[in-house]
This record gives sequence, C-alpha cells and structure tokens, in this order.
Amino acid sequence: MAYINVPEGVPGIRSLAMFRPETGKLLYDLAQVLLRGESPLTPAEREIIAAHVSNRNECRFCRDSHAAAARVLLGDEKAAIVDEVISDIDHAHLSEKMAALLNIAGKVQILGKQVTPDDIRRARDAGAGDRDIHDTVLIAAAFSMFNRYVDGLASFTPDDPEAYRAMGVRMAKGYVAPQTQTPS
Amino acid sequence: MAYINVPEGVPGIRSLAMFRPETGKLLYDLAQVLLRGESPLTPAEREIIAAHVSNRNECRFCRDSHAAAARVLLGDEKAAIVDEVISDIDHAHLSEKMAALLNIAGKVQILGKQVTPDDIRRARDAGAGDRDIHDTVLIAAAFSMFNRYVDGLASFTPDDPEAYRAMGVRMAKGYVAPQTQTPS
Repeated sequence: MAYINVPEGVPGIRSLAMFRPETGKLLYDLAQVLLRGESPLTPAEREIIAAHVSNRNECRFCRDSHAAAARVLLGDEKAAIVDEVISDIDHAHLSEKMAALLNIAGKVQILGKQVTPDDIRRARDAGAGDRDIHDTVLIAAAFSMFNRYVDGLASFTPDDPEAYRAMGVRMAKGYVAPQTQTPS
Repeated sequence: MAYINVPEGVPGIRSLAMFRPETGKLLYDLAQVLLRGESPLTPAEREIIAAHVSNRNECRFCRDSHAAAARVLLGDEKAAIVDEVISDIDHAHLSEKMAALLNIAGKVQILGKQVTPDDIRRARDAGAGDRDIHDTVLIAAAFSMFNRYVDGLASFTPDDPEAYRAMGVRMAKGYVAPQTQTPS
C-alpha cells in the first residue's frame, strides 16, 4: 500500500498524478517533451537511457515500464539490446555514441559532479553534439526524480510482466496525464 | 565553463533553460507549483527542504540560492534556522513535524526505497498529513533532478555570496522561466 491515499490498483506515477493533478500534468508534459519531443536522439534511445537510470536506482516500476516502451519502439529484431543494457551494460552491443551517452547517464545517476570533461570528450569523439549531451543529462536527472517520487511514496508496483508489456505499448504512443475529473 | 554552449555568465539552471526553452519552461513551472503553489507547507518550509536536499547532493548553486530564498521568506529574526539545517541538521531548532519531514527528504535524497513506514509514522505523529508527505517527497525528488541537471552539465556557479542574496530576493517572489526571444 502506498504511504498516502492514492487510487487503489493504479500503478506508479499515474496514481501520484491523480493525487496531485497540478504537478502530475507538468511531470507528464516533461516526460513527453523529453522522451518524444524533437531531439537528435530517437525515442527508443531516450527510453533506454530512462530504463538504465531507473535500473541503477532500483526502481522496478520505471525500469520495467520504460524498458517495455523501448522494446516496442525498437521492434522485435532489435529489442534484445534493452535486456543487454539492463543485465550487463559493459557487454551490450551499443554504438560508440550510445555507450558514451549511457556512461554519462550513469554518472548523473550517481551525482551531477561525477560527470568529467573526459566523459564529455568521449561522447563528442563518438559524434555526440550539445543537444545529445544535454538531453542525456536531463533525462538521467529527470529519472533520478521520477524514481524517487514513485518509490519514496511506495506507489503500487505491478508484479505481472504482462502489465508492463501493455504499459510499453501505451507509452510508445506518448505521455498524457491521467484524467482526474469525471465528465458531467 | 559549462559542458555545452550556454549563454556565458548566466548561472545554473537559468542558462540551461535558455539553451532548451521547451524543457526550461516546464522546469520553472514545476518549481513554481511545488515551492509557491497551494500546500500545507509554507514557501519557507519548502525552500528549506530544497536547500537541505541540494546540500546533501553537494550542489552549491541550488543550496545557496534556495537557502537565500528561505532566509528572505523567513525574515531576519528566523533566518538562522536555514544555516542550522545546512551546517548541523541534528541540532537544528526544528518543530517535530519539520524534523520528521526533513528526515523523509533526506531518505529520498539517498533513494526512494529508503523511506520506511516508520519514517512516515513519525511524520504523521507530529501532525503531517498526506499532502505534507507528498509535497516533501516530490520536492526532495525534484531537487535530486535539478541538482544533477545543474552540476551534470557544469553550469556556471557564482562564487560571490552577494549574487546568491540577490537571487534569493528574486526567487522569494516566484519562479518564471527566462525570456529567450528578444521582442521585435
């Protein structure tokens, strides 16, 4: 049971957005701009960064839902990379650029000052520009928030893998805050 | 120098919001709703939570600017509590409720799952309701993002204490994203 009185059976951040719609709308809008808005990174690459940070923050709800969204966006042939990143990132079959950006995301997950000029240089040498680096850092920072919000209030985390597959299909289409008012 | 090409001499998150206005606006709106919107916690109490989390995340820009905002909101007579929280929280002269909420914020700063039912019970025993607990967790989570965003991109951190005092005065009035378009 969650630590506060949120709608029962509604998972993760969705239940928290229903508890406090004013912040909920901004958080969903942020997820939409960050993960689906204009960026040099594909939506799938951004979902992989989100799943990687959530994995390191031990937030199962965010890890499994964003991993599921990444799999849907990548398609069956390429989906295995998501599991590689989650289970053993050092041996995942990543491009040099994605490996360098996930390295930065992993540093941000620990703390901002962990990111060094060498980490940035490695990403630039692999072809990353300012916007790749900016978006990677902000996605990693934002999931450091989402993960803490979801777990800090002990919101409902489903156990059934099928629930995450269904979430992944919905999330691949984009992020829209839950409706909280019943139409009259 | 920041890791990406942001306006020179503009400090912290302000420079990042100018680099990417679409996320910048949402982040400023989130700060405004969280720290100035309707809540059972006073704006000063919420700024103290923000400064405490930023202090633990070793983000000087966020710590000193939000501590300055808290001092302005508290007024000269009560401002010393801000310094007590930052330098030695265990001996700060806090109400039972604020001590219990800052304990929760400190757990969230580490990781969401660190918050225990006992931490929540202690806060409720001291008079905290669902919204106090919710807002404390989300403020602590949001500053876990802001701190990482500001430091992960090595944005400009002023050294001059006077710069923070001036920021505190502005921030006490509220959070508005920087204008990025020059009026024609």
